[in-house]
Formats: sequence, C-alpha cells, structure tokens
Amino acid sequence: MSVVLLAHGDGGLLTRKLVKGLFIKYFDNPLLRQLSDAAVFNSPGSRMAITTDAFVVDPIFFPGGDIGKLAVCGTVNDLAVSGAQPLYITASFTIEEGFALVDLEKVVDSMAAACTEAGVDVVAGDTKVVPRGHLDKLFVTTTGVGIVPEKLDWGYHRVVPGDVVLVNGSLGNHGLTILTARENLGLTGALASDCAPLNNTINLLRDQCPGVKMMRDLTRGGLATAAKEIAEACGLDIRLQEAELPLDPAVRGAVDILGLDPLYLANEGKFLAIIDPAQATKAVDILKQNAYGRDTRVIGEVCAGNGNLYLQTPLGGSKILGLLAGQPMPRIC
Amino acid sequence: MSVVLLAHGDGGLLTRKLVKGLFIKYFDNPLLRQLSDAAVFNSPGSRMAITTDAFVVDPIFFPGGDIGKLAVCGTVNDLAVSGAQPLYITASFTIEEGFALVDLEKVVDSMAAACTEAGVDVVAGDTKVVPRGHLDKLFVTTTGVGIVPEKLDWGYHRVVPGDVVLVNGSLGNHGLTILTARENLGLTGALASDCAPLNNTINLLRDQCPGVKMMRDLTRGGLATAAKEIAEACGLDIRLQEAELPLDPAVRGAVDILGLDPLYLANEGKFLAIIDPAQATKAVDILKQNAYGRDTRVIGEVCAGNGNLYLQTPLGGSKILGLLAGQPMPRIC
Repeated sequence: MSVVLLAHGDGGLLTRKLVKGLFIKYFDNPLLRQLSDAAVFNSPGSRMAITTDAFVVDPIFFPGGDIGKLAVCGTVNDLAVSGAQPLYITASFTIEEGFALVDLEKVVDSMAAACTEAGVDVVAGDTKVVPRGHLDKLFVTTTGVGIVPEKLDWGYHRVVPGDVVLVNGSLGNHGLTILTARENLGLTGALASDCAPLNNTINLLRDQCPGVKMMRDLTRGGLATAAKEIAEACGLDIRLQEAELPLDPAVRGAVDILGLDPLYLANEGKFLAIIDPAQATKAVDILKQNAYGRDTRVIGEVCAGNGNLYLQTPLGGSKILGLLAGQPMPRIC
Repeated sequence: MSVVLLAHGDGGLLTRKLVKGLFIKYFDNPLLRQLSDAAVFNSPGSRMAITTDAFVVDPIFFPGGDIGKLAVCGTVNDLAVSGAQPLYITASFTIEEGFALVDLEKVVDSMAAACTEAGVDVVAGDTKVVPRGHLDKLFVTTTGVGIVPEKLDWGYHRVVPGDVVLVNGSLGNHGLTILTARENLGLTGALASDCAPLNNTINLLRDQCPGVKMMRDLTRGGLATAAKEIAEACGLDIRLQEAELPLDPAVRGAVDILGLDPLYLANEGKFLAIIDPAQATKAVDILKQNAYGRDTRVIGEVCAGNGNLYLQTPLGGSKILGLLAGQPMPRIC
C-alpha cells in the first residue's frame, strides 16, 4: 500500500502499523515507545514553558525545508525566544486519504532530523485521516514543552528607552520562498526558506548575555508586526533603520518586482532581541560565530514614546508601520 | 464580519481581534492573557504527563457535544487514564475560510465550559485559516499537560491473572451518535454522545483505590481494541462477559439494525480499569456514586494466556476478538 488509507486513522490495526512502521521508526525514544495515552516524564526543573502551532504550509515541500522541519523549528523557536530550553515535542498529523506514504515518510524523516539538531524528542502523537477532499494533503500540529532557567526574567517590563533591537539575519526568505514556489513565479533559483531550529543559538546568547531583555521570533506578520507588538506592549516607540535591515539580494530583487514588503514577510529562522546597549557588541559577536547568526545586525533602538513603530529611511525621513493588515498570505506556515 | 476570513489567520490585525475578542474572552487566564510565544508556568510537582490529539469530527455539532467539548474531554481523559491530574491545555484551531464566526464562538464557549468542569486552563493557542475547500470547516488540536503523583505506579507490568476489568458505563454511544447524525439515519432521537471530562471521576478512584493497576480510555477502536492492546502488552488473556457489557437500549437497537459491533465503536466518556479483585466492589461503589460512573460494571477478567481477547457468550461459547480492522470510521472524533 503506497498511500494513506482511511483505516490508517481509525485507531486499529493499520494505525498501529503506521505508528510502529513510521513514527516509532523515526522518532524512537523510551517515552514514545510506550505508546501510552500520555507520555509521563520527570521535569528536571520546576519552571516550564509550553507552546503550540498548527502548520498548514502549501506547498508541503519547498526549497529549504518541508512542513515537518517547519513544524519542529517553529515550535522549538517559540520556546527558545521565551527563554526555554526545548525538551519534548508532541506531533499530531491530520492527513488526506490518498496521501502518498513516501511523502509522509519524507516529512517524518525531516522532522526527526530537526529534532536531533534541536535536541528534542517527540514523545506523544496522534494520526487522523480524513476522506479525500476534506483536507488538502497534510497538516501537522506540534506542541513543545521546555525548561526555563529559574532566575531568567525576560519580558516587556525590562525594556527601556536606549535598548537596541537586534536581528540575527536576512528578512523575508521564508515567506517569499513559499509564495514563489506556490504560485510558480519562477523566482526560486537563489531563494530558500530560512527555516531552522534556533534554540541552541538562542540558548547560547541567553546564557552569555544577561543584557538580553526579551526576544520574539519573526514568523507570520514578519519583523514589523513583531516590533509593533513590542512597542505597543511596552508603551515605547521603536525606530528601525531601513539601511540596516539585512536583505538577501535574491529577496531584495523579488520583493521589488512583486510589490511585497519584506518587513511583513514571514521568517522561520529569525528572531528579534531587545538588548541593553552595553552588551550589543558582545551579542552581535556571539551570534556572528553561529551558523544561524552570521548576518546579525543591530537594526534599531527603543525610544520614549507611545507604542509607535517607525522606519527611518536613509535620507532622514520616517514612516509609521502598523501590524500586518489587508494582505493575507494564507498557508505560509 | 460574520465569517472567518483568510486575514483572521495571517498573524496581523484581524488575528489579534479574533484572539482578544473570542479566545481570551472565553479562555481568559493570566498565562494566556500574556499572548507570548510560549506560556511559562511553574510545575507544582516534578512528574508530568503530556498528550496530544487532533479532532476532526464530522458533524462539528452533534447530540451531546461538539468538536470543542470533544477536544477538551479527549485530552483531559488521556491525561486522567495515565494517572495525571490535568493542569493546562493548548488549543490550535485550523479553520476554513468562510466558517461562521457564530459557530466558532459556540465551539469555544463549549470548550471553556468543559475546561471549567475539568479544572484546566487553556494557556496557549494558535489559529490558522486556509482557503475555502482546503479543509472541511474546522479542526481542533489540543495538547494537555498534567501532574502525576510521585508514587503512582500504573502500567501493564502490574497486571496479573485474576485482576478484573471494569468499565464505567454504556458502550458505543459516541461512535453511533456521530455515524447516525452524519448519515442522517434518523435514529438520533434517544442517542447522544457520552463525551465528558472524566478526570475528576478518575482522580477520585485513583486516590481511593490503590488496587487500580492501569486504565485506558475507550475512544477510536472502542473497548475491544483497547482490551486487545492490553492483553498483548501484558502477554495475558482477557475474557469479557458479553452479558455484562453495558449497552443503552437505544444503542442496542441501532447496532442491530446497522450491523455494527458496539465493542468497536468509539466512546468519549468511558474508560476501562484493571483492578485487583479485592478492591473491585469498592471501586464499583465509588464510581456508581459519580455522574460519569452510574452504570459501572465489572465486565471481565485477566487470565493466564498469550495476549488473546475473548468474548464469552451467555450460552458458554467464546470468540476471539482482534484490533479494529477493515471497517474504518473516519472523522468519528
């Protein structure tokens, strides 16, 4: 049998075959192997973080990754920017009847590779199969739990005027890659998603730079939406320097042609950090030595204000940026 | 706006409106209110359980519940049968463009009611909207974490010949209700799903009956699949007494007409417990005083053997039951 059948999701014999032949094969670990209703584990600390996300990206396979890698990275990154060391992942697969098993295996394989890199285990899961036409191919929902250091105090309350805004590299690669791959725009040559598990990079920065005050990952809504949300939550302004925003040449060319704003495009391997200016140089140096931080830059600063986000142009002008609105990009992650 | 738009899922302005106007309104709690990438919490104990499930039930609203109530109950029940006290839930909503907001609110409202009854909070969530036709209406994926008492030792390794098998009430109500509602079989009059949060009931039994050795909830695959899995995992036989199986009259009549086997129909408010025979009467007495255990019965026993599940008929015959196979029932939960 080379495709997923309805019976693969009925909780019976074929479900068991799929679980043992595929999920256990790739995700094998002592907790998952028990196949119990819930995975029971001892938490090594007493402060934990939990996050969940559904992944519905279309196409499922794209330059730089696939829905499985994306799901693991999205979840560990949400934990990491909260200051947590990711520990365990759960994965729920909702599959359209007729989906090729070889494609499911590719997805699971790349999830397992991302888990290995991130140092997490998939400890619980679920599989549902719906009739043909009730779902487009495959959706994956992942939830992650992690441990937060007892004394870590990241959050909006720590942000003050003068803090700097740092980003770990080029913007818009994921969103643009998905759009061009889906719409067959023929621009994919040099483009690839930046999808990556950032937890090792972020945890390193966390442990070496107490001047880090908070972080956000830059997924749906992009850099501008995340920065605007921080400005509003802090009741302070944030000023970004347009000339400092890292953009890959391939992204810069394509967004001009397509009329897209890279500040609102989704990223899956980028975070923004708010840092004490005294530690900005140290933070940049640490990140630049890391594979996921080579293009790290200070891109702006926090100022007294009322929750506005400004983009300063090289010629000295400035414009106000809001939350993403009115240009929905469905199934981008 | 009365329907879900693509922009409700793009992470921008409308997503925020939906989150604040709907999800926070119904699920409000200090952790969720922070709207951070991950909810950070102090775990009151050090032994935790985690479980996840996607819910794709069709129809979304059915006698006795809806997809929201089902999601919360399914998740807290998975934790409870693992011996855990459910603590926190995450909820991920994947929605078809055009879905009525009033229906989404009904679903969220009933999730909130189930959470209140179960004593859990929704502390993190996600919303994705996909274009019309990419998903049938609404899928909900919930993940739960709970605390397991330090010294609790439930599991297959405790099961020995002579233990009894107990079930907390009538079988097949949920599966039959969904099938008849979906196919408009006109049999729904007296039928309703048994969908219920069992954690308070199960935690009570756990704390008062140390003779309980393990539990399973009886969802997809029904009683027979769960019992067969236990028999196999223990390397022992289980013998069920057909005459003792609790069946509501409405279920008994309908399964005969439709040619369905209630032992393989899904339940969403039923569990099976394996108990030391010396405590069986006590356990039944405790459960019978509980709203979700009035029809509790001892339905069989564990015997020396090789992992077989037998159904003993009233006339003295017996037949071997396997895992659910060959009659897939999609979108039952």
